[in-house]
Amino acid sequence: MKEQRQLIMLPGPTNVPNRTIRAMMKPMINHRGPEFQALYESIMENLKYVFQTRNEVFVLTSSGTGSIECAVGNVVNPGDKVVVPVFGFFSQRLKETVIRRGARVIEIPVEWGHSPTAEQIEQVLARESNVKAVAIVHNETSTGVTVRDLPKIGKITKENNVPLIVDAISILGGDKLPVDDWNIDICIAGSQKCLACPPGVVVVSVSDKIWEVIEKNDTRPYYFDLVRARESSAEKATPFTPALPIFYALDEGLKIIREEGLENRFERHATCARAFYSGFEALSLTSYPTRHVRSNTVVAINVPSEVNCDEVRKIMRERYKVIIGSGLGKLEKRTLRVGCMGIISAAEVTATINAFENTLADLNFPVNFGAGIQAARKTFHS
Amino acid sequence: MKEQRQLIMLPGPTNVPNRTIRAMMKPMINHRGPEFQALYESIMENLKYVFQTRNEVFVLTSSGTGSIECAVGNVVNPGDKVVVPVFGFFSQRLKETVIRRGARVIEIPVEWGHSPTAEQIEQVLARESNVKAVAIVHNETSTGVTVRDLPKIGKITKENNVPLIVDAISILGGDKLPVDDWNIDICIAGSQKCLACPPGVVVVSVSDKIWEVIEKNDTRPYYFDLVRARESSAEKATPFTPALPIFYALDEGLKIIREEGLENRFERHATCARAFYSGFEALSLTSYPTRHVRSNTVVAINVPSEVNCDEVRKIMRERYKVIIGSGLGKLEKRTLRVGCMGIISAAEVTATINAFENTLADLNFPVNFGAGIQAARKTFHS
Repeated sequence: MKEQRQLIMLPGPTNVPNRTIRAMMKPMINHRGPEFQALYESIMENLKYVFQTRNEVFVLTSSGTGSIECAVGNVVNPGDKVVVPVFGFFSQRLKETVIRRGARVIEIPVEWGHSPTAEQIEQVLARESNVKAVAIVHNETSTGVTVRDLPKIGKITKENNVPLIVDAISILGGDKLPVDDWNIDICIAGSQKCLACPPGVVVVSVSDKIWEVIEKNDTRPYYFDLVRARESSAEKATPFTPALPIFYALDEGLKIIREEGLENRFERHATCARAFYSGFEALSLTSYPTRHVRSNTVVAINVPSEVNCDEVRKIMRERYKVIIGSGLGKLEKRTLRVGCMGIISAAEVTATINAFENTLADLNFPVNFGAGIQAARKTFHS
Repeated sequence: MKEQRQLIMLPGPTNVPNRTIRAMMKPMINHRGPEFQALYESIMENLKYVFQTRNEVFVLTSSGTGSIECAVGNVVNPGDKVVVPVFGFFSQRLKETVIRRGARVIEIPVEWGHSPTAEQIEQVLARESNVKAVAIVHNETSTGVTVRDLPKIGKITKENNVPLIVDAISILGGDKLPVDDWNIDICIAGSQKCLACPPGVVVVSVSDKIWEVIEKNDTRPYYFDLVRARESSAEKATPFTPALPIFYALDEGLKIIREEGLENRFERHATCARAFYSGFEALSLTSYPTRHVRSNTVVAINVPSEVNCDEVRKIMRERYKVIIGSGLGKLEKRTLRVGCMGIISAAEVTATINAFENTLADLNFPVNFGAGIQAARKTFHS
């Protein structure tokens, strides 16, 4: 593989700080020995800080999708009813995971680019009895939508005594998400998004009150069994051999978050997202999601029909060394997505807008050259 | 974590060559872009060499146990009959995975330290009808037993038209295992054992003839779905975000194997295992497994009842910086296990025996001091 300096502006994996990369330069250790226990303790402490929780938290060796199977498989049994709002590619995947589990999905269909609302959840719970769980994607990575009603939804599910499962894969560590205050029973996230670590592990928080449901479930998955994870956790270990280098990286990544402070980190993400949206708008490109539910961690923009998305991405990559994401599913040819995660700062935002402006000019698309960068800059200096 | 030079003589994770560790020092890349495709191609080619197969092979982000769930979940449905020989801790785990899947286990119970035989498999298949699969651990990491009858078992399952699932987690790359010649339908292994990579991914080979069974299975697991893995593989990608640093390491680790050559590598493991057994025997310690089924990758020895295993491991770790494995399950206080994997050479074997001799002396155990090292040395010079 040819090495070159690239800016990875994907909605994950994202750029990983050198400090975190270097943390992986350690030799292997016994995953049941004292060195690992110390590492585990450090990760647990900082992870609880990031989740803003007193719940038990876990780190599992898996991609993000595995964590969804973990959450669903531990709580939901075949035949159960699960409420799932579907408003993009990843909420569709969540729905499929529930179906594959043999459960029945009560779908709340939402137009892509919009967010499910607390009212919708409330209505469904009023209508349906014996709902086993509400499972919701908090940040729909495919459409750039954040469910801003999540705290209200958490109140409603709590009042109805229905467990709330939240897929926060692409948002934890990048925007406000106090798991306990918002009454989230299971919250999952990936290492390679706003935590700015390499992919390879997922993090999971589990509320005290949902343990009863999990323990009663006798068809829990084997690899993703949370009861087993809890037993191992008591000995400061993982149930199965952990991806050690990613654990080393996660430990460092969490320390970086703690040093910065969550509030500062959220503010930085929000400012960079505003700068992205301003920059794109100044180039006459509109945001895909409706304004009030725009994500601070994934920026999705509409692309005029005369512009070929694949070509834009190819030129940005080859000429300007900036990698951005394509649209997903039905948005493949209509949107582009930019990650606004982890180490994101004015430098990455302006470098991305700069590469984008250049690319549009290369494609002879009439562009108000410089307007994007100017608008983005203004955000940082206002 | 305090850094110190340690010799990790566990039955996995094992010592990882610096070259492989350094391979992880690369920035993140787009897991759906051309750089990843090149990496994927390179891994696939060398992985087929290691599996000695023309089958399709896959790399999944998971611990070894996840690969067992993958193999079982894709082939076996609830209610199916599966033949599982149980002769140690990990074959017990395989059995549990099958049961958790809702299938019925036809257990072949085998005394620990011994190996299931081809005759036993033949008898069960003659007696039982509608067997969905034979699932067998090839190298029982808990007892140090390798199933030397595996090629015969592969012939029998083929003749009976029953799929053969082989857990080769702790042996692939360390001993002979020609997947196609031995008629293995699904073969799984971990990155952190004889491939000498960090933990975090598993490798899977899938025979042409078992795809029909897998495709028909409509309750395949979601995260570990092999049909989905095959679809992504056609585009030189993984179905879900891969643990990139471990993929970088695996690529390097497989290149190292290719440079050495499989035959040389197997010979090296076999010689080192012989040296270990000779060394321990010269110290009057006996091997736990019966002689003809001793593993070349995991060495398990009986410990006299007057010796405290935990104390031995603690002294070896703290005074001599050599980490060896404890016994598992009912062998916890009766055996010690030493990994003979990956970069294993005369240096690691003698360093381990040396530390062990010193430890026994420290514990005032009457030991023929120097006899172990002498015997081990002789193996390398004969």
